Amino acid sequence: MSGDQAAEFRSMFRRHAAGVAIITADVDGELVGMTVTSLISVSADPPLIVFSLSAKSSATPPLRRATTAVMHLLGAGQLELARRFATSGIDRFDGVEWTRLDTGEPVLADVESWMLCRIVSTMPAADSTVVLAQVERVVGAEGIEHHRPLVYWDRTWHGLGEGSLL
Amino acid sequence: MSGDQAAEFRSMFRRHAAGVAIITADVDGELVGMTVTSLISVSADPPLIVFSLSAKSSATPPLRRATTAVMHLLGAGQLELARRFATSGIDRFDGVEWTRLDTGEPVLADVESWMLCRIVSTMPAADSTVVLAQVERVVGAEGIEHHRPLVYWDRTWHGLGEGSLL
Repeated sequence: MSGDQAAEFRSMFRRHAAGVAIITADVDGELVGMTVTSLISVSADPPLIVFSLSAKSSATPPLRRATTAVMHLLGAGQLELARRFATSGIDRFDGVEWTRLDTGEPVLADVESWMLCRIVSTMPAADSTVVLAQVERVVGAEGIEHHRPLVYWDRTWHGLGEGSLL
Repeated sequence: MSGDQAAEFRSMFRRHAAGVAIITADVDGELVGMTVTSLISVSADPPLIVFSLSAKSSATPPLRRATTAVMHLLGAGQLELARRFATSGIDRFDGVEWTRLDTGEPVLADVESWMLCRIVSTMPAADSTVVLAQVERVVGAEGIEHHRPLVYWDRTWHGLGEGSLL
């Protein structure tokens, strides 16, 4: 592909809408978290998910070493958290309420729907890493029925609802 | 996980919003196509994408053997196509306008933004298949700026726009 085509690839995917999640982990005592728009469900039984870690994120090197992680699914009400965990050069957990599971993973208190995942395998893809994980615990599946999901598209944030229904 | 947790996993992901795409391929002379909500961008340079093929779809067995495919990114105007390529037991291409690339892959005429991909590797994940593909050609990156993206969430279809902007 030419450089123009690479730019067009970026442009294309900026305009492919995606649900928004925040992944958190404790890696050797370090709290790590980042906003991701690359979460997909792969299998329901057993429950398997895939997400990708961009080489450009400062959270990627520690997350590559994580063995477990918490994946939080965000609603429109969690927009500020989504922004915060996508901001470089700050302590993302500073001022954010979170608790720790018995098994050590940090959970964001303001997100009611989350899953505890165990990393099954990772696949390098150029500089990035594709992660396959098995979900071991699901919390808040009922609550999520009532929230407006948060969607990222073309550098803007959207909340689905009556106004977007086709 | 218990059966209840598996049901909660399904419930959770029904409510994780996703952009919508249609993948098409010619596999040994057979036209294959399916609507997917599992497309993510993994790397921009080189341009790599990942998508998953569910064991439950009739298009999955032939798509597992594809070496190239076309990934169409859908706007709200392509809702009927999205529905059609998610319907079981029909000839999905019947009555749909499509053309063939010099290299043989079918392209849907009503979708202006698409990418020609070469399958790089596949990873089994329970009964499903996770596919890593390299994008070789990007068409319609300009046109996509003007469409309302199509989003699937909780068995409903949405179009992003002013009404959903946060």
